[in-house]
Amino acid sequence: MIEMWTNTAMIVVDMQKDYVGPGTAPFGQAVLPCVIKAVDIARQHGVLVVWAVREHDRLGRDVELFRRRNYGRKKHGEVVRGTKGAELADGLVITGDDYKLVKTRFSAFHSTNLHSFFQAVGVKNLVVVGVQTPNCIRETVFDAVALDYENITVITDATGAYTPEIHAANILDMKNVGVATPTLKEWCQCDA
Amino acid sequence: MIEMWTNTAMIVVDMQKDYVGPGTAPFGQAVLPCVIKAVDIARQHGVLVVWAVREHDRLGRDVELFRRRNYGRKKHGEVVRGTKGAELADGLVITGDDYKLVKTRFSAFHSTNLHSFFQAVGVKNLVVVGVQTPNCIRETVFDAVALDYENITVITDATGAYTPEIHAANILDMKNVGVATPTLKEWCQCDA
Repeated sequence: MIEMWTNTAMIVVDMQKDYVGPGTAPFGQAVLPCVIKAVDIARQHGVLVVWAVREHDRLGRDVELFRRRNYGRKKHGEVVRGTKGAELADGLVITGDDYKLVKTRFSAFHSTNLHSFFQAVGVKNLVVVGVQTPNCIRETVFDAVALDYENITVITDATGAYTPEIHAANILDMKNVGVATPTLKEWCQCDA
Repeated sequence: MIEMWTNTAMIVVDMQKDYVGPGTAPFGQAVLPCVIKAVDIARQHGVLVVWAVREHDRLGRDVELFRRRNYGRKKHGEVVRGTKGAELADGLVITGDDYKLVKTRFSAFHSTNLHSFFQAVGVKNLVVVGVQTPNCIRETVFDAVALDYENITVITDATGAYTPEIHAANILDMKNVGVATPTLKEWCQCDA
């Protein structure tokens, strides 16, 4: 029981208003209460909370090519730096020694300082929550596998995708490479 | 029609005896003839062929943690450097100006010189074939998306997974991030 909280960080991925706020796809809003609980439990056990968020240039110059067309002077791209849509969803707050990490790609490790930060503070185990399963969650998790994190956990009901099938298929693939895939209750062994 | 062959490389992933040779899972051997044809067509059009292969330390010191237990002095881990199992499957040969890239993780871009090599030779478009869809193929493709390659193609019948469901789910996820997913015939627009 003890090891699961030691040398551990929780990465909360892309839980921003443009992705999971009012008016977005239902799966994000369904996941939000579970993420709020997961963060709360992590804090209670002294787990480091890392807020991995996307923030993009208004012109889209730092967005993946395949969706760069959604950005520009006369367009309203998602999570543009400084806009309300880039803020954390209601109910989520950065506090204390939390760490905020800005990323521009799916994986929280891609072209960021996250791995060196975790090495500096001795993090060996990761718990990943947020949206969405096939992209930012999975890419962060597969990079963590490649980077030799010792225990990697995805809380299955604290992440989601556009369809239950996509969600389930991705959870299976992650399980097949050694990732733990508990529900929130199974993870905390409590009545979350 | 012309652009698809220009500034383009084909990455052939993990087509080694231990993965797709005799005695391995059927999906690999099913994919092999299609990969042979794909490489042949690529060569005919002057597409650079890159052979991304795994080669691991006998003791497993460079293997992902989750399967390091399969390696060791008294064990026979897969694709150990210098063994027959690490060789390309029968029917596949490195020739001419092909480029061989040794990797130790799923993605051909992870901790390798592949991206800088492609930048040096002006490669902007990628065609990916080999095994297996949810791991090395997908991770290579998602890294390519993150690295802003302009056109990324996965030839769907020149890759495979342990089940058709896993294969299809991963092809869908890649399609959803802008990756082209033709069959070999659709790709070459010929009777492959």
